[in-house]
Amino acid sequence: MPILPVIFAGGDEGAWRVRSIAAVVGSSLPAVERLAIFEGVRVAPAAATWALAGVVGHERYVGAREHNELAACSPSLGRPAATRAALITIRKSEAWWALAQDERREILEEQSGHIAIGLKYLPAVARRLHHCRDLGEPFDFLTWFEFAPEDAEGFGELVAMLRATEEWDFVDREVEIGLER
Amino acid sequence: MPILPVIFAGGDEGAWRVRSIAAVVGSSLPAVERLAIFEGVRVAPAAATWALAGVVGHERYVGAREHNELAACSPSLGRPAATRAALITIRKSEAWWALAQDERREILEEQSGHIAIGLKYLPAVARRLHHCRDLGEPFDFLTWFEFAPEDAEGFGELVAMLRATEEWDFVDREVEIGLER
Repeated sequence: MPILPVIFAGGDEGAWRVRSIAAVVGSSLPAVERLAIFEGVRVAPAAATWALAGVVGHERYVGAREHNELAACSPSLGRPAATRAALITIRKSEAWWALAQDERREILEEQSGHIAIGLKYLPAVARRLHHCRDLGEPFDFLTWFEFAPEDAEGFGELVAMLRATEEWDFVDREVEIGLER
Repeated sequence: MPILPVIFAGGDEGAWRVRSIAAVVGSSLPAVERLAIFEGVRVAPAAATWALAGVVGHERYVGAREHNELAACSPSLGRPAATRAALITIRKSEAWWALAQDERREILEEQSGHIAIGLKYLPAVARRLHHCRDLGEPFDFLTWFEFAPEDAEGFGELVAMLRATEEWDFVDREVEIGLER
């Protein structure tokens, strides 16, 4: 899978109207009216109030069996009925990144059930993960969710379940941006 | 561990004199006289003939026990006797990146013994790994080695052993730059 760089730009333009911006942990992002998404580029538009960069790339924790389970029920982005979306931006603590790969995997899945929780809400809640730690960005992950208005409650359950996990003890900044188009 | 961005710049300047540049797999890099290393920056110097960017960050495959074994015998960079160095730049194939985390780990260590091979040549051959796949660079990894002239043979054995592994079947570009200061 080739790397896909993506820019999320908050400002006055973009296909998505911002319904809410809420700091879950740590400081928020400046209020904006709209969110635009640019794929295949690494440079933010000059007019944006803020811009966050990430890359869609290889999977970092998912095993082969989990990959196949996820792939079998993951819808593509851009479904006509999916008029709601959320961008949740996440930074994890230095304590998380100092852990070895097997320790991080143990917390993420064996203790927290992160992959299993996401699977429970597929195909209703489509997702795409963008990595940004290596890019020197303010967040480590930009997580994108798309769903129909009638699945908004399920989406709320999904994020509440994740936030209750041991993995989330390592989240030291999180902002949730609610969107509609 | 905070991210440390690093630029390796080939050109007329730098602490390291280039002894050789050899394409191991795929195309080489342009010939240069010297190599300069800039830590903590992401922008290449304008005068460089070429520049490669990477980040030192969290470990991607090493488990906790392996981490402790490596840490116990890894020397720091910059030892006065370590007047030889090598920069080996590596790109892996799309087939590699399409594998799940557990499949990549299985090939890297259980089949290829990558971590164990590196351990065998510590502390003689100091190493530092720089990740660059997410940065959209021409290589996925910039691997740096420092050693005394009397350990050059051991260094040669180390890279020969790695190149004979199953993991190396997934390397689709590799350039080795021999250096001294």
